[in-house]
Amino acid sequence: MFQEITIGSLPKGQRNTLCDVPGVKVGHVTLADGDCQTGVTAITTRDENAFEVRTRAASHVFNGFGKSIGLVQVEELGELETPILLTNTLSVGAVSEGLIRHTLEQTPEIDLMKATINPVVFECNDAFLNKISALKVRPHHAEEAIDAVSEEFAQGAVGAGRGMSCYGLKGGIGSASRQVKVGKRVYHVGALVLANMGRLPDLVLGGQHVGPQIEQQLVSDESGPEKGSIIMIIGSDLPLSERQLKRVAARTSVGLVRTGSFLGHGSGDIALAFTTADPVDTKSRKRTHSVEQVDERRIDRVFRAAAEATEEAIVNSMLNAERVTGRDGNTRYALGEFGDLMGDANE
Amino acid sequence: MFQEITIGSLPKGQRNTLCDVPGVKVGHVTLADGDCQTGVTAITTRDENAFEVRTRAASHVFNGFGKSIGLVQVEELGELETPILLTNTLSVGAVSEGLIRHTLEQTPEIDLMKATINPVVFECNDAFLNKISALKVRPHHAEEAIDAVSEEFAQGAVGAGRGMSCYGLKGGIGSASRQVKVGKRVYHVGALVLANMGRLPDLVLGGQHVGPQIEQQLVSDESGPEKGSIIMIIGSDLPLSERQLKRVAARTSVGLVRTGSFLGHGSGDIALAFTTADPVDTKSRKRTHSVEQVDERRIDRVFRAAAEATEEAIVNSMLNAERVTGRDGNTRYALGEFGDLMGDANE
Amino acid sequence: MFQEITIGSLPKGQRNTLCDVPGVKVGHVTLADGDCQTGVTAITTRDENAFEVRTRAASHVFNGFGKSIGLVQVEELGELETPILLTNTLSVGAVSEGLIRHTLEQTPEIDLMKATINPVVFECNDAFLNKISALKVRPHHAEEAIDAVSEEFAQGAVGAGRGMSCYGLKGGIGSASRQVKVGKRVYHVGALVLANMGRLPDLVLGGQHVGPQIEQQLVSDESGPEKGSIIMIIGSDLPLSERQLKRVAARTSVGLVRTGSFLGHGSGDIALAFTTADPVDTKSRKRTHSVEQVDERRIDRVFRAAAEATEEAIVNSMLNAERVTGRDGNTRYALGEFGDLMGDANE
Amino acid sequence: MFQEITIGSLPKGQRNTLCDVPGVKVGHVTLADGDCQTGVTAITTRDENAFEVRTRAASHVFNGFGKSIGLVQVEELGELETPILLTNTLSVGAVSEGLIRHTLEQTPEIDLMKATINPVVFECNDAFLNKISALKVRPHHAEEAIDAVSEEFAQGAVGAGRGMSCYGLKGGIGSASRQVKVGKRVYHVGALVLANMGRLPDLVLGGQHVGPQIEQQLVSDESGPEKGSIIMIIGSDLPLSERQLKRVAARTSVGLVRTGSFLGHGSGDIALAFTTADPVDTKSRKRTHSVEQVDERRIDRVFRAAAEATEEAIVNSMLNAERVTGRDGNTRYALGEFGDLMGDANE
Repeated sequence: MFQEITIGSLPKGQRNTLCDVPGVKVGHVTLADGDCQTGVTAITTRDENAFEVRTRAASHVFNGFGKSIGLVQVEELGELETPILLTNTLSVGAVSEGLIRHTLEQTPEIDLMKATINPVVFECNDAFLNKISALKVRPHHAEEAIDAVSEEFAQGAVGAGRGMSCYGLKGGIGSASRQVKVGKRVYHVGALVLANMGRLPDLVLGGQHVGPQIEQQLVSDESGPEKGSIIMIIGSDLPLSERQLKRVAARTSVGLVRTGSFLGHGSGDIALAFTTADPVDTKSRKRTHSVEQVDERRIDRVFRAAAEATEEAIVNSMLNAERVTGRDGNTRYALGEFGDLMGDANE
Repeated sequence: MFQEITIGSLPKGQRNTLCDVPGVKVGHVTLADGDCQTGVTAITTRDENAFEVRTRAASHVFNGFGKSIGLVQVEELGELETPILLTNTLSVGAVSEGLIRHTLEQTPEIDLMKATINPVVFECNDAFLNKISALKVRPHHAEEAIDAVSEEFAQGAVGAGRGMSCYGLKGGIGSASRQVKVGKRVYHVGALVLANMGRLPDLVLGGQHVGPQIEQQLVSDESGPEKGSIIMIIGSDLPLSERQLKRVAARTSVGLVRTGSFLGHGSGDIALAFTTADPVDTKSRKRTHSVEQVDERRIDRVFRAAAEATEEAIVNSMLNAERVTGRDGNTRYALGEFGDLMGDANE
Repeated sequence: MFQEITIGSLPKGQRNTLCDVPGVKVGHVTLADGDCQTGVTAITTRDENAFEVRTRAASHVFNGFGKSIGLVQVEELGELETPILLTNTLSVGAVSEGLIRHTLEQTPEIDLMKATINPVVFECNDAFLNKISALKVRPHHAEEAIDAVSEEFAQGAVGAGRGMSCYGLKGGIGSASRQVKVGKRVYHVGALVLANMGRLPDLVLGGQHVGPQIEQQLVSDESGPEKGSIIMIIGSDLPLSERQLKRVAARTSVGLVRTGSFLGHGSGDIALAFTTADPVDTKSRKRTHSVEQVDERRIDRVFRAAAEATEEAIVNSMLNAERVTGRDGNTRYALGEFGDLMGDANE
Repeated sequence: MFQEITIGSLPKGQRNTLCDVPGVKVGHVTLADGDCQTGVTAITTRDENAFEVRTRAASHVFNGFGKSIGLVQVEELGELETPILLTNTLSVGAVSEGLIRHTLEQTPEIDLMKATINPVVFECNDAFLNKISALKVRPHHAEEAIDAVSEEFAQGAVGAGRGMSCYGLKGGIGSASRQVKVGKRVYHVGALVLANMGRLPDLVLGGQHVGPQIEQQLVSDESGPEKGSIIMIIGSDLPLSERQLKRVAARTSVGLVRTGSFLGHGSGDIALAFTTADPVDTKSRKRTHSVEQVDERRIDRVFRAAAEATEEAIVNSMLNAERVTGRDGNTRYALGEFGDLMGDANE
């Protein structure tokens, strides 16, 4: 019955995931064993070599209480030169190294050119369910996540989302998409989130403030301040300049706030938006490049799509998550376990 | 019955306005005559000379599609040296000049010191109700608005808010406040908004998505993209560093989004936060200054207060506004005219 | 003999001014009468209506101790919709209003569309020579400066530069240009500065630290901290994205530092870069636009050109300035009066 | 004779290094074996546990073409919670992990509190001399560099500087300091750079443009665009707010430009400034904290000190470096090998 929750007004893509954007794929490596509840999620933005054919991107940091790597260069150059990886906070180093190894293997010329690589790795803190200090994620897990990418991927307590919590319940990986029409052509705006923020009393689902009701049903709950975070990735096949991508990334906060967040102090809330249109072809010998961008007066529909897809992706991260018991026996219940309540609230 | 709308959980200040922050005052000059429906609103942050005793401040630009003046220096130096003024978009120049004249009169030493003045003036576009191109606001109106400040002030279709529209209805000046307890001491977080953004179908009041219902009752409405904007001013007596003030300013977007906005392309959404604590005393000969700031782990309550006060201030700008007919006979209806509907939705 | 000062290695444009960029013109209104030594300088970036055919631009703020207007929107939208105007600090409001009046006259549709205008006005503080508090610059002066634009324009103590000081000597308006070859095509990178910063002991000319020598020859000098500023405008016909323009703007600091500045506290140092390539045509009905941009691996020559042209423009502001006596009999000597010294230093 | 090069006018600290700031220490691990010429450098800002007693800091990115980690959080929270580490570009991941392991060992409470750690690691690309793709730096090297910190440390081709090039010659780690008097008290401003940028023809030493002369003496040189970078760390015991620290960090560009750089496209130029004054004591139960900051009107001397110390640190990185032959037999000559030339130029 949760599927009845209605978010926004724009039409969804066929898969209703980030992979409705042609060429985009997602893969997971999940580590789920007792105290270890964590993993890696990889997003590839195209089938070509990511270092040679670069995807235009921009980021927006709402709350910089986070440890991501790679954003400084994305801000300067407006491009991705690796897949995008997600993991737990203390594993950014290991995953960076894995991403570097992967890229060096794919592109031996990097060594010859004496070039470098800008790994883009995002993180959230899954320490409630995962003994994060054990540093169980290793570089090879990053490589395996990239190898596992597909247009079909699981959501919820998988990959980097394995140990994440969202509004005091089980969160993790969620995705959704919207279609945007410009002229006669239909484009896609997809969102993928690593959702790990929020306090249960604040939870809003499809406009209904259901958090307090659910909280009454929970026997116990770890309270205290947020130590969460959310990473919000927006992809599109619509032509957008880096400046426009930055504007689109900024609108993910709309989706986030609509689920009840108030961008708490301890929540590192970060967004990245990319377009698969007009990539930067490093093999090109052309001296100037022609880059298509949508007319600015038509960009509102893209903003709306980013907001709606982000909100729905967060909800989907919860709807798709199973209950997980991890470190020290800590448990996060699944939103699905409160189905009747939700059904009532949502009628 | 609108008073029944409940926003957030923190206690309100006594006046439930920005002026619950001790020392803060607000004044209006309203021009309402046929095609001319506009004005100026002034905020003074303390009773002392604003140029000599400077108030710490920081801003956050969500959407820079706006024409404010003064933010570049606030970002660099973290202080206000004039009152904060609000007006219509094309009158920023005239109001800046008025603010400069006022400051020169108050502080003749500026001329002797060969110093300059950083006027801080925000704006929204009231062209639907006001023939903005007539440039009817003159420098003396700025001076009069400053002279008119008081701890009691009107909200709605007054001052700079005279010609503003909010979610397709009459908007303008709104205010609200929250109390925040740190230790045994109670501080205040107040918001004042110049609300001029949003499309009616998106309107949410106290968590209820009432926009579509109201739209059905409206005989006619100007549609088209947003050409709006919102200015959100947060004041507090809580000690906050410039970095913390910037974080607080960023949380106004939470209140804005909760009323239904998605930060549309044409909406210049800008926030400024100030604290009256530990001002910069330019008469001081001390070589270093001691500045108090709240412990960062206690800042979440300030974020919540800023979000709640902003949301309520936007709602109050509409609840307090009267119907206005202006330029070309254009009319914005008051939210209060849809009271029964709201009453039902809000029960 | 000053012409012998060699700055950089790239070839100069034909005029060696910003107007080597095809379509760019500059005009001045100079007010020089006793205590009033100030003015307005206008830069038009193309012959078409600036509001209808918008020039792509980006800015970089090195030190935000300044009172410019218009940069918030330039940052968000990456375009200019008016000419660029320069004046003294306290006249930004009056010049903004003049720029708005000019634009409304040129484009009556703005009123019909209920649109707004983003005036871009930069300033420096000329209070040493000009009784800035007299507010003698009026809106009509802005309009007259725009009417006066031409491909040939004076440098030194003219227009907005009339009352400006540079390294304790007479500064003001300076300009220079460089040619940049991309493939077989030659492009231009031009600089225009409003130079009003620096202390004489720091002055470096063409790599020679001549400030201390000149200071010995000056009978008296107003010491004290900088209350200056510099505005640096870079124009080019090379295709550059907004992100690239921002990078180019950042390189003006290289030229500035090479003349001896250390970006002092009181010096509001701000740059804006624009390209005349691929303007934003607001009359276009196209849904997406093709925007050319230079290959990033070829951008270093543009950075060098911006650095060299800025350094030379600052020097030219001094070389072209005459001695000016203004307010309270304050005098700024011309660099040209120390010619022999310079000749020696420069041989 | 190089010691005769005079940079700036402020007095130097006793050691003329970053360690003139009381409590600051620096340590190296150097890997120098054939194709492997690289290492790690650690800076500790105080003797206490860095995670528990946090040092206030801010950063400034001149050119974000770099892969550092940790800056997003420093920007948001204004504090360091680990030592600062420097290494080669592709080893940021390994060094981050080492820094995390070190911090977890020092502070077991992190695991109990389910907290995270923000490792701050900067990098430059040493691929000309070091086979960077071999990823020889491992996490334990980071731990060893931290263990090796001392108030006395080597400069030049050591630690992270082992394989770095500067203006086509051997660069690496350099340091310098200045004394700043505020009232009767003397404070220190120290700089430490990882210098790896610039092209030889641009080199300026103490105001003398010596690069072209040295280039004539070099038999061969790898030309091509910059693939360099520079990391500039400023430390002080002067009380500075985060906003002020950001301003100080921005002035390192003055020192950089004075050595001849024009902030090339491929050069990731990044600065971080910290103060040891008024640290953030996480064990404190106080609800508000008193933070001292220098009067803004006295900050110019700090800017000058940062500029001078940075310029001299860059020169010192070259003066202290020995000739290194590394990967593929590539060689970088030492500036000291051109001593006579320099002596002449510098007389």
